[in-house]
Amino acid sequence: MMQPANHPTQPGVQALFHPRGIALVGASTDPSRLGYGMARNMLYSGYPGQVYLINLHGGSLFGQPMFPSILQAPDPLDLAVLLIPAASIPTVLRQCGERGVPAAIIAAGGFRETGAEGAALEAEISAIARQYHMRLLGPNCIGLIDTSLPLNVTFLPPPGPPAGELAFLSHSGAICAALIDWARSQGFGFSRLISLGNQADLNETDLLAPVAADPATRVLTLYLEGLPDGPRFVEQAFQVTRRKPVVALKVGRFASGQRAAASHTGALAGLESAYEAAFRRAGVVRANTTEELFDWAHALAWCPLPKGCAMAVLTNAGGPGVTAADALEANGLSLAELHPDTTAALGKLLAPPASLHNPVDMLASATPETYSACLQLLLEDANVQGVLVILPPPPTHAAEEEARRLIPVIQASHKPVVIALMGERLIEPAAELFRQAHIPEYRFPERAASALSVLYRRSQMLAQDTSAPTYPVQEQAARELLSNLPPGFLDATTTNRLFQLYGLPSLPMRLASDSDQAVQAAVGLGFPVTLKIASPDIPHKSDVNGVLLNLGDEQSVRQGYQTILSNARQARPEAVILGVYVQRMLPAGQDVILGVVQDAQFGPLVMFGSGGIEVEGLKDVAFALAPLTNADVDTLLQSTWAGQKLSGFRSLPAADRAAVREALFRLGQLAAHFPGLAEIEINPLRVLAPGQGAVALDIRIRAA
Amino acid sequence: MMQPANHPTQPGVQALFHPRGIALVGASTDPSRLGYGMARNMLYSGYPGQVYLINLHGGSLFGQPMFPSILQAPDPLDLAVLLIPAASIPTVLRQCGERGVPAAIIAAGGFRETGAEGAALEAEISAIARQYHMRLLGPNCIGLIDTSLPLNVTFLPPPGPPAGELAFLSHSGAICAALIDWARSQGFGFSRLISLGNQADLNETDLLAPVAADPATRVLTLYLEGLPDGPRFVEQAFQVTRRKPVVALKVGRFASGQRAAASHTGALAGLESAYEAAFRRAGVVRANTTEELFDWAHALAWCPLPKGCAMAVLTNAGGPGVTAADALEANGLSLAELHPDTTAALGKLLAPPASLHNPVDMLASATPETYSACLQLLLEDANVQGVLVILPPPPTHAAEEEARRLIPVIQASHKPVVIALMGERLIEPAAELFRQAHIPEYRFPERAASALSVLYRRSQMLAQDTSAPTYPVQEQAARELLSNLPPGFLDATTTNRLFQLYGLPSLPMRLASDSDQAVQAAVGLGFPVTLKIASPDIPHKSDVNGVLLNLGDEQSVRQGYQTILSNARQARPEAVILGVYVQRMLPAGQDVILGVVQDAQFGPLVMFGSGGIEVEGLKDVAFALAPLTNADVDTLLQSTWAGQKLSGFRSLPAADRAAVREALFRLGQLAAHFPGLAEIEINPLRVLAPGQGAVALDIRIRAA
Repeated sequence: MMQPANHPTQPGVQALFHPRGIALVGASTDPSRLGYGMARNMLYSGYPGQVYLINLHGGSLFGQPMFPSILQAPDPLDLAVLLIPAASIPTVLRQCGERGVPAAIIAAGGFRETGAEGAALEAEISAIARQYHMRLLGPNCIGLIDTSLPLNVTFLPPPGPPAGELAFLSHSGAICAALIDWARSQGFGFSRLISLGNQADLNETDLLAPVAADPATRVLTLYLEGLPDGPRFVEQAFQVTRRKPVVALKVGRFASGQRAAASHTGALAGLESAYEAAFRRAGVVRANTTEELFDWAHALAWCPLPKGCAMAVLTNAGGPGVTAADALEANGLSLAELHPDTTAALGKLLAPPASLHNPVDMLASATPETYSACLQLLLEDANVQGVLVILPPPPTHAAEEEARRLIPVIQASHKPVVIALMGERLIEPAAELFRQAHIPEYRFPERAASALSVLYRRSQMLAQDTSAPTYPVQEQAARELLSNLPPGFLDATTTNRLFQLYGLPSLPMRLASDSDQAVQAAVGLGFPVTLKIASPDIPHKSDVNGVLLNLGDEQSVRQGYQTILSNARQARPEAVILGVYVQRMLPAGQDVILGVVQDAQFGPLVMFGSGGIEVEGLKDVAFALAPLTNADVDTLLQSTWAGQKLSGFRSLPAADRAAVREALFRLGQLAAHFPGLAEIEINPLRVLAPGQGAVALDIRIRAA
Repeated sequence: MMQPANHPTQPGVQALFHPRGIALVGASTDPSRLGYGMARNMLYSGYPGQVYLINLHGGSLFGQPMFPSILQAPDPLDLAVLLIPAASIPTVLRQCGERGVPAAIIAAGGFRETGAEGAALEAEISAIARQYHMRLLGPNCIGLIDTSLPLNVTFLPPPGPPAGELAFLSHSGAICAALIDWARSQGFGFSRLISLGNQADLNETDLLAPVAADPATRVLTLYLEGLPDGPRFVEQAFQVTRRKPVVALKVGRFASGQRAAASHTGALAGLESAYEAAFRRAGVVRANTTEELFDWAHALAWCPLPKGCAMAVLTNAGGPGVTAADALEANGLSLAELHPDTTAALGKLLAPPASLHNPVDMLASATPETYSACLQLLLEDANVQGVLVILPPPPTHAAEEEARRLIPVIQASHKPVVIALMGERLIEPAAELFRQAHIPEYRFPERAASALSVLYRRSQMLAQDTSAPTYPVQEQAARELLSNLPPGFLDATTTNRLFQLYGLPSLPMRLASDSDQAVQAAVGLGFPVTLKIASPDIPHKSDVNGVLLNLGDEQSVRQGYQTILSNARQARPEAVILGVYVQRMLPAGQDVILGVVQDAQFGPLVMFGSGGIEVEGLKDVAFALAPLTNADVDTLLQSTWAGQKLSGFRSLPAADRAAVREALFRLGQLAAHFPGLAEIEINPLRVLAPGQGAVALDIRIRAA
């Protein structure tokens, strides 16, 4: 389904990350100005290329001459950094263009973030960049750091971040500043830090592939406040995540709120459902907190992936062992059942009251040698896919002795090992050894277990079937059917015809505009029948008592017609009422809801879950991007109770799960082909016994 | 309901925390032995009383004589610490008893944790303690630290923990050791640390009240691996939590698993449901991770409680502000709507592009003066109940300048303020200032928001109505009815009679043992009727298609009888079948499930939630300890969809919520009066229209 991403090797992006020369416009000799700090960082961070300082008034700084204009800066010049008042930016940017500079970082603020005037200025600089085929980072950003070139184009106080394997792309500059400082105590480092600012030109999606291509980067971390270019992000990120892990913290979860909608699907599809679906499709791991983002990222950078979810815990104390076992289970992992040979071998190493079963508790007397020998046994056990080692401050020897013994065992294994290194001052030297060996260590078992779980999630993600089956549908005929459609709900005839064209079974439904017609229709369809109010103004029929089920004879149909009409008129006096739909009553089965809603950022979203009138209360629903992949449909069915119980539950017989899968794929195709259909809802889809299919009993489609 | 706790002022517990003299039996001159470290800590931690060292071989240590036996140690001697091989403990403990020592700490291991022989030894020392009215801490524990006396009776390497307001009671010694080391970097400290070991005598419940009575302790933190004395813990903790917060980390969540059970209630009531219910009743806050335990505890120790959930965020950067807003909502708090006066006043302080609405973003140029003036305005706003202040590493000045300005504003307010102090090295001096001022600071907004939320949860907890209404019930008659009851399911007559005696409405149900009797019963009750299989061996009637609803005439009752019998015989050929129960069909309403299960640790648990056959799949249920308080019933109804929808939802009409409340209270009384009733389940309770009551349609009671 996905096409290979084209790796942007455009000169602009190339220049941003590999400039042969950089000019700073706005260098300042005043240490309290940002232009001073920026010049200092550019000159003293080890950057091997040329640095030119520009200041209108000339002079010199750090022994370097300051040129009055960028036009005077010598070659090579690949990147201009602009740290001058916003109003002067257009002029200088044009000079950069004339000078042939392929890329610029606009660190200065005063643009879109300040209101309408700033937005106009931002539009102007975007236009200038396009005119000169220049690529821009910013404005209103902190800049860029590359620790392997190295290059530090920020005004932040030194030292810069520790070098490492994580790239960080951020919509927030303040977060960059905080992380650079914080990372130093955490034992992980950065390959690149990129502050995206207002994204007048380059955004996070543009930079995904170029950053992933950086050999120093092993994991990409993202701090996102939104994704204006959703589908392209999904496509690019999907390519990147096959090769390198991407972990994202997306904020603005709650601010995004719920949307106004005519369908249950619409009401349930908060914007976050779309983000969840998009990240899942793209293979991006979504972190919930800033700490989790980096706990996970550095485990992904340093550890091999486990082949399964069964983990072992190795401890010298009971309490933290139990805590770890809890945390493994809470994170979707399980405690491995040790092979009897392992238990026997452990028995030879450990004194009687030790626990030879998982969690393996060696007791407080465990020596560094015991630690490493037991770990070796656990890693050799085919039932064990990874190990969480617990190291409290040891009472009789230094933790670094244990670290020294454990590290070679861990490094020789193809299974992941994470350490819960408990304490602070007493375990500092051990922490340092583990960090140097690229073995993740965390203060408490809970965070270590969470890191192991993300490794397993990535191995699962890479094993997913991301193919998207396509069923034969009559798209062209549907296109004709839907041409010149007025906005609003589709009538029943069009709806049923559209479903026919897409191979989605629905129950014939006849419109009756008086009780005689209703009886006639019922006789034609065969008793028992169902009656439903027919009104474009009443989307939720049961809300007005507009549905009657299981009417077995002519008299009850005649009477039912009147009942429904009077119920509807009473509840919605203003509604246009066309009459009543008559449908044959189907055999019992499981009723589920399927829906589609168009998301402004990511396009069509398909919903699946428990239907009926309580659908919005139960919230037993899940979403995926259309068209659906096999992995998406697995998720929709496995993550909802509605999907789980299709396989049967206690006295509830199994239903035709295969028919639901096919209906989901077909609905996804329909949604993808016709973005003009703002909402589609099948509530319910009656799922019959296995092999008997699934039939849409009520369908509502709203054209935008 | 709860009686005031009797504060144990027994000499033994008093001696443990306020000894006038301590003897260490097992002092050692060998620095690699634990008896050396223990002697060092006892002598050099500032303890103002007498310390006597005991070693069989005499000699001296740290300039102190070593007595060959505790019998030679002079007065005063209130506490003996035993760090000698387990086998020698009984003899020495008897000497302590003879010597009149009121309390002993047995740090040595080698008891219950090592197997049957150790367990026998442990029983022996318990008996000795009882014989001499001595109180024991341990065995197999790390000991005890009191930072205000001060006293350090552990063998852990120095330094001891920083002094502070948190008491820590732990079932795990290793966790104590790790925390003492870790706390030093975290900015909080301990009043007391108590390692409980095997709890041969004193357990966590015994020490709750004495520790809460310690004036240096502001918050109690607990690390629990179980609660063998559940009801007494709940009672004691309830008393303590009225005055001082208690935060607990209970591990062994997953190991506890599910229990084998004949009812839905039993199947759903994992042991964790009982812990959740017990902590909620006791007012104990349950932390999910070790870090959360202390994040929360020190906020509770240092902050006033908010009067509501509406919080403000004050930031100088957009990204962390959005992160904080997300985290507040995720933690059950809300963003305050600022009063127009506040917005106007903020407008005078801040330049135009700043955000004057919550989150208040002062922009990167904010000075320390701006920070404090804006915080002042937010704290004065009656719509704001607390503030989360975000301090990234400031680009132009030191974070400690902001801290100095903010601290007096925070200290002058009665509203809680927590700080997200982002970074590490650059913010260290600021962190130190906040810690000295007892203002909680966290590295990231997510943890700060979580801390604010626990303050709100405590204020809500203290406002709860913990009274337990008691309805008039005929307990004595029920006791007679249930006397000499054989184990197993109660018959329908006894069941209905019992429910009558407890004022729980149930629908008359007649047993028919042939189809003629069924028709007769139906005519007597009035059509339409329901038929249900009557068999002590078939608890889940619908699992065998043993239920038929809405039978409107004699013929369908006659036929239905045969259908049900043949269904049941086919599904369960071995079952004893008594016939069929006939019940009048009730008007429609909302069906819910009520249940009772006896928990081995906490006694009867009441369950409420969504019933029907899918109850175990939907898991829309909640539990509370019986008898129920008003707060419990509020929780049961508010935390389940079944409870929420009793107020009506879309076209679903409201149902008689008051009748459900009363049924829950009455069921709780029944459960509390008859612990011999192992399981009670009403599935469903049909809840009729408001004012119409609620009726148990199917009841199953199993006697233990």
